[in-house]
Amino acid sequence: MERRVPDLWFTEYQTPNLRLGLRIKDVLLNKRSSYQHILVVDTMEYGRVLVLDGAIQLTEKDEFCYHEMMAHLLLCAHPNPEEVLVIGGGDGGVVREVLKHETVKKVTLVDIDEEVIKASKTFFPAVSCALDDKCVEIRPMDALLFVKGHFNEFDVVIIDSTDPVDFARGLFEPAFFKDVYVALKEEGMMVAQTESPFSEPDLLRDAVRGLRMAFEKVFLAWGVVPTYPTGLWTYAIGSKKLDPRMQKRPAPQRTKYYSDAMHSLAFELPPFINEIINGGNLEEAKGD
Amino acid sequence: MERRVPDLWFTEYQTPNLRLGLRIKDVLLNKRSSYQHILVVDTMEYGRVLVLDGAIQLTEKDEFCYHEMMAHLLLCAHPNPEEVLVIGGGDGGVVREVLKHETVKKVTLVDIDEEVIKASKTFFPAVSCALDDKCVEIRPMDALLFVKGHFNEFDVVIIDSTDPVDFARGLFEPAFFKDVYVALKEEGMMVAQTESPFSEPDLLRDAVRGLRMAFEKVFLAWGVVPTYPTGLWTYAIGSKKLDPRMQKRPAPQRTKYYSDAMHSLAFELPPFINEIINGGNLEEAKGD
Repeated sequence: MERRVPDLWFTEYQTPNLRLGLRIKDVLLNKRSSYQHILVVDTMEYGRVLVLDGAIQLTEKDEFCYHEMMAHLLLCAHPNPEEVLVIGGGDGGVVREVLKHETVKKVTLVDIDEEVIKASKTFFPAVSCALDDKCVEIRPMDALLFVKGHFNEFDVVIIDSTDPVDFARGLFEPAFFKDVYVALKEEGMMVAQTESPFSEPDLLRDAVRGLRMAFEKVFLAWGVVPTYPTGLWTYAIGSKKLDPRMQKRPAPQRTKYYSDAMHSLAFELPPFINEIINGGNLEEAKGD
Repeated sequence: MERRVPDLWFTEYQTPNLRLGLRIKDVLLNKRSSYQHILVVDTMEYGRVLVLDGAIQLTEKDEFCYHEMMAHLLLCAHPNPEEVLVIGGGDGGVVREVLKHETVKKVTLVDIDEEVIKASKTFFPAVSCALDDKCVEIRPMDALLFVKGHFNEFDVVIIDSTDPVDFARGLFEPAFFKDVYVALKEEGMMVAQTESPFSEPDLLRDAVRGLRMAFEKVFLAWGVVPTYPTGLWTYAIGSKKLDPRMQKRPAPQRTKYYSDAMHSLAFELPPFINEIINGGNLEEAKGD
């Protein structure tokens, strides 16, 4: 009789009506932490995949698309980023990219769930590799509380959150953006992942609105992440003073998605995205 | 007892290890033509969806991303496109976009399968709406044969093919690109959809190689199409003389994905795509 491997799949319900299926070789971790369900699967298509509360956070094959954009859009737009705060992102992917900038003296990582950090160190060494760097301080706590205690301290804040449900909901609220504003230095900027304009247009619109209530200048950038719903992802930016579209420093070496050319490209929105956030008012979209 | 709707899904196997699931309200058409299986489903997430041999060709919600890029990249890069040949594309989406250019005097649509045209007219009126235009000539035949009989005739050729299997395989071969070259006028250009660099890197590399055997100048552009595998899609361009990165005429009114800004940006490749087609030689990527 022919030898057959078992037909194992992980399925992500991206919306109630849309699902992505990945054939898996094995389940490497499957547990509940104090905050969420943590799953690590080894897939045929995308290598190892980290899944929190059923939603894909990263895959070995395409994590570069997301982590490079989250880090370099702002770090390359700031003339001298030294103090960086990363909220969420316990996997370490954003921190790894941030540390490619030699100007950076300190990265503070605030993730509510230490179990995510532990899982990433165990199963994603190429993603978590910078978490033990001497410049990195890890604070396992609620970012809403952390931010309230800091003033005029960070050059760049990167909000690498999960979807805005449960404990992550507050990370998309205007009150939080205002606290981040206060935690930023005079030339400070923040970026938050704001999901897909196809599957979550209301969330995107509301996040941009919330940012506009907190920041003088608001911008939206976009990029591709194959394993996130619809593949098209957005990054909303609040800035006190600087124009993040203007690159101040070159892209780090050996990036795979981000580049100097991609920097300016990311801020040119397809018309339908502009329509979602502005009802077609292009000037407002650009934060001018 | 609670009333419940049936749990109906259409599943596309994008690779043997990756599948996309769409919850459906109903199956509207489900038949085999002489060439392929034709399925039309009504989905909750993306509206009506056309599926050929199990692969999604278009959805009502995101078809604009693909059809606008396929048509406008070259039509806006040509100073005076009058004669346009569309190969495949029996749904009519590309033809609809082509006819937004007032310079165009004639569009010849060559699709091997008349049943696709019929299905589109029945179920996708907003996509097929231009197929009855007086400028459109429909030739239901094998494009490999059609192209062999034409010389110095077209300004732009658009190859809107299905995946390169079975009868569509020849549409990705150097011999076919050479025939297209001969069918083009002196300033002529062609574009072909060349799949995703994530799921089909070898196909992309080979198609670009094949184009380089036929054309003086070869370029690659990219864009997003949520319902195509990985969401990131590529468009390979062969040109006799013109540089398609230089826009000659403005974007048509009311486009949703394509715009003047998106035109030049589409040719800026993320580094990993450049690596796939050139092993990192940026100059060659740009066709210089």
